[in-house]
Amino acid sequence: MSVPPATLYGLGVGPGDPELLTLKAHRILTSAPVVAYPKPDTGESFARSIVAGYLRKEQEEIAIEVPMRVERFPAAEVYEAAAKRIAADLKAGRDVAVLCEGDPFFYGSFMYLFERLASKFPTEIVPGVSSVMAAGAASARPIAARNDVFTVIPAPLEDREIATRIALSEAFAIIKLGRHFMRVKTLIETLRLTGSCRYCERVSLAEERVMPLAEASDTAPYFSMILGYRGAEKAIRGR
Amino acid sequence: MSVPPATLYGLGVGPGDPELLTLKAHRILTSAPVVAYPKPDTGESFARSIVAGYLRKEQEEIAIEVPMRVERFPAAEVYEAAAKRIAADLKAGRDVAVLCEGDPFFYGSFMYLFERLASKFPTEIVPGVSSVMAAGAASARPIAARNDVFTVIPAPLEDREIATRIALSEAFAIIKLGRHFMRVKTLIETLRLTGSCRYCERVSLAEERVMPLAEASDTAPYFSMILGYRGAEKAIRGR
Repeated sequence: MSVPPATLYGLGVGPGDPELLTLKAHRILTSAPVVAYPKPDTGESFARSIVAGYLRKEQEEIAIEVPMRVERFPAAEVYEAAAKRIAADLKAGRDVAVLCEGDPFFYGSFMYLFERLASKFPTEIVPGVSSVMAAGAASARPIAARNDVFTVIPAPLEDREIATRIALSEAFAIIKLGRHFMRVKTLIETLRLTGSCRYCERVSLAEERVMPLAEASDTAPYFSMILGYRGAEKAIRGR
Repeated sequence: MSVPPATLYGLGVGPGDPELLTLKAHRILTSAPVVAYPKPDTGESFARSIVAGYLRKEQEEIAIEVPMRVERFPAAEVYEAAAKRIAADLKAGRDVAVLCEGDPFFYGSFMYLFERLASKFPTEIVPGVSSVMAAGAASARPIAARNDVFTVIPAPLEDREIATRIALSEAFAIIKLGRHFMRVKTLIETLRLTGSCRYCERVSLAEERVMPLAEASDTAPYFSMILGYRGAEKAIRGR
């Protein structure tokens, strides 16, 4: 007798504070027999560390080892192999919860598993709190309001590309800073917007650091962003 | 003997499904002696309806009646009066949880209370799941990935302003559709992007409707959005 296929869950686990999981993510996480997560080839899985306190030792864990060169398109073979292993569990009737930092579909790597598995198995995405929202909360200033245009700009883009997007936005987040941080910081100084920007690092974690961009040091980890708001004068225009 | 001032919470309650509250929002909501929320002058409060099942009758409720003309800057007097009433509770040592649909600082009205109260009382913002993330989950397609530029564009902007922002984005969300829906739909047809867009309405609720934009009817409520993804050909460029 064949077992009905189980469900693949893309589980948003939020920006870092374990209490920022949704009730739904918590329920699915604690009841799934199999939990999968990305993990750098050296070091710990950030997604797993967020939910570590909720895991039970009876749960099977699948660590998907992703090469550390974050700038490059992750090796297709890694996700191919992980998809095969997850598919085996699903075929055996075991639900698999894939842990996704922040939200699964917002700049996440879950899409690589999704595109390989979603057409073959029942799939559900559980949205999560994005680090952008957590950065707004931590910096005690609205991210965007009323009819503001809000743009998320990855730092690896060229200066000219970044500047053009900023010019057309009342509010913006520059993500994936890492080794691009000083270049972007200099660009923002050139645009005379430093005073409108906050630097946000590891938001919602104990190590959280949030400060005016002018006070930030010269290095930034991958899990950091700049939140900018240049809407003050535009708001007066009545938009 | 004076009572120490209590804490003002801006509580993100997510896009609509009560299970999409965070564990933190649930904890604070169920322990706060006072709960405040915006409410249209006619009809029910959407924020309150999301958490109705978690409220206890011992909790004091403050309904902030907001005039229905959503396009106009809400009357300052309404928030002035609400801030005074909330301040009285805080001074008396009673924590106040203000319910915010989605995330408090992402196109929310909480900012009007925040700017009146945060300098006078301990204030904490609890980030929430935005309806943008929930729309991505419901439409079973990534919102943004890799080095995509993602832009949130309010529908009340003029066609030319909307088109310029779309042109500079791999991914976009057009929010606050309401009476602007047909104009925006026509604009997207003119830009030949209809095939890349999904229409998302009341996401995560029982009444959720998600479909290709081409199949959407001619009217849209305020709680609806268009999610667009035009990155396919750009992704090939290797960005």
